[in-house]
Amino acid sequence: MTQAAREEELVQRVLDSFEDTASPRLKELMQGIVRHLHAFLRDVRLTEEEWRQGIDFLTAVGHLTDERRQEFILLSDTLGASMQTIAINNAAYADATEATVVGPFFAEDAPEIELGGDIAGGASGQPCWVEGTVRDTDGRPVPGARIEVWEADADGLYDVQYGDDRTAGRAYLFSDADGGYRFWAITPTPYPIPHDGPVGAMLAATGRSPMRASHLHFMVSAPGLRTLVTHFFVRGDELLASDSVFGVKDSLVTDIEEMAAAAPTPDGRDVGDRTWARTRFDIVLAPAGA
Amino acid sequence: MTQAAREEELVQRVLDSFEDTASPRLKELMQGIVRHLHAFLRDVRLTEEEWRQGIDFLTAVGHLTDERRQEFILLSDTLGASMQTIAINNAAYADATEATVVGPFFAEDAPEIELGGDIAGGASGQPCWVEGTVRDTDGRPVPGARIEVWEADADGLYDVQYGDDRTAGRAYLFSDADGGYRFWAITPTPYPIPHDGPVGAMLAATGRSPMRASHLHFMVSAPGLRTLVTHFFVRGDELLASDSVFGVKDSLVTDIEEMAAAAPTPDGRDVGDRTWARTRFDIVLAPAGA
Repeated sequence: MTQAAREEELVQRVLDSFEDTASPRLKELMQGIVRHLHAFLRDVRLTEEEWRQGIDFLTAVGHLTDERRQEFILLSDTLGASMQTIAINNAAYADATEATVVGPFFAEDAPEIELGGDIAGGASGQPCWVEGTVRDTDGRPVPGARIEVWEADADGLYDVQYGDDRTAGRAYLFSDADGGYRFWAITPTPYPIPHDGPVGAMLAATGRSPMRASHLHFMVSAPGLRTLVTHFFVRGDELLASDSVFGVKDSLVTDIEEMAAAAPTPDGRDVGDRTWARTRFDIVLAPAGA
Repeated sequence: MTQAAREEELVQRVLDSFEDTASPRLKELMQGIVRHLHAFLRDVRLTEEEWRQGIDFLTAVGHLTDERRQEFILLSDTLGASMQTIAINNAAYADATEATVVGPFFAEDAPEIELGGDIAGGASGQPCWVEGTVRDTDGRPVPGARIEVWEADADGLYDVQYGDDRTAGRAYLFSDADGGYRFWAITPTPYPIPHDGPVGAMLAATGRSPMRASHLHFMVSAPGLRTLVTHFFVRGDELLASDSVFGVKDSLVTDIEEMAAAAPTPDGRDVGDRTWARTRFDIVLAPAGA
């Protein structure tokens, strides 16, 4: 038997072992994993020492993962697997606003704010007025859409990384009768994903940066419509082409207008003797079940 | 852009992110992982819920893994990845005894025994005389080869699973001037791999058995020759075709001769009023660096 035939015979034996799987979908998934995993091993001719390093790497990823740190999600994100899954599952919603990664920093317990309220909650950074509308794919305004927003502060940290119980840089609000929304946030700035673990070591060994392009997270939901998880990004950000989790989509890059310290704010708020910014991010939700 | 083009473009972006990897081999490995991981996601059209289940599964594998339990190796074994890696790396040693999985139960601190000694150390089971020769691929005897052997007891447990510090069912010895070796062991019996964790749940969900075909482990080393990690298996064992880690190779299946209680033993040992068994397992080592 040739070497290739020996290897192929083993693949077939492993595939056959999953033949009795009761769930047709689980069978498809397991046989897909086997087919692609073995193709990888055979393509790269993995050495036994590299296999051991792979086991050690996954072991380290597993040991760092706990309630506050999800290193497997970081690994999926930095290999583009999270974004590919999103791309696959959002194929049918081409007219809607594009989705991107949820990331590891969403929290369930954000405070509600009024329209025009401030999500900063003491987070450092330049004030940034964000406004837009929520519509469906027929162009109809969506009133009462729940809009969750969260972002890192000017130091690159989300509130859940502060190490205390503060809530900052996150809130939710509801769109008005015309589907409009508006709030104060802080101008998004770049920050690194957590890179003191095995995923950070992988990025360092491969010459990759842990930096994410500047962004503000949205999760928007309304009855009868598909929940959208996305960000807007900042046009001109030099990290747009090298976002460490491949989250950037052209359609999500927005213009941020820099405003002089003296410029009057949209709602008359006094931001003190400092510059501020403003942007518009209109959202289109796909039908539920589309 | 078509859906396929969007997905392909993302794959290319992730591949490009590894272009600056200093080590050419690491670059090849990472790009291979990306290529096959994304091909898997796209082939099976992984859903977002399935992605979350995958993250949860790996997290559970990580949390069960510690100094005494290596669930990632079990996962690799049960997906056939360990055996495929062995197949890939032993292509050049076709005239030598075939290799198989090392498994998770090898220990460094086994006791030395004399030729003809007993490795059981109190492990339960039928006495089994094992003999053979160690030769190189030119047929020359290999004197002084170090032969590590280990096996489960009749209850299916290795000593490291007893939960105390006993050593049983493991030892090492050296081949004699003619390359010959012989020792008493216990007749190998089937046992399940540890299946109370996520890998066991995967096997249960896919209708697979955790049972391993009966076997006795060997690791054989000698100066100038390639170290061999293998087992012998028991001809007639009904699990040969469904070994849970795909470790069986036809060339490793040996005849075990069942002996009557009264039959004289090869070395005159009195095994008491019970049956015993005997087998022969000849070993051929490849040249080092072959």
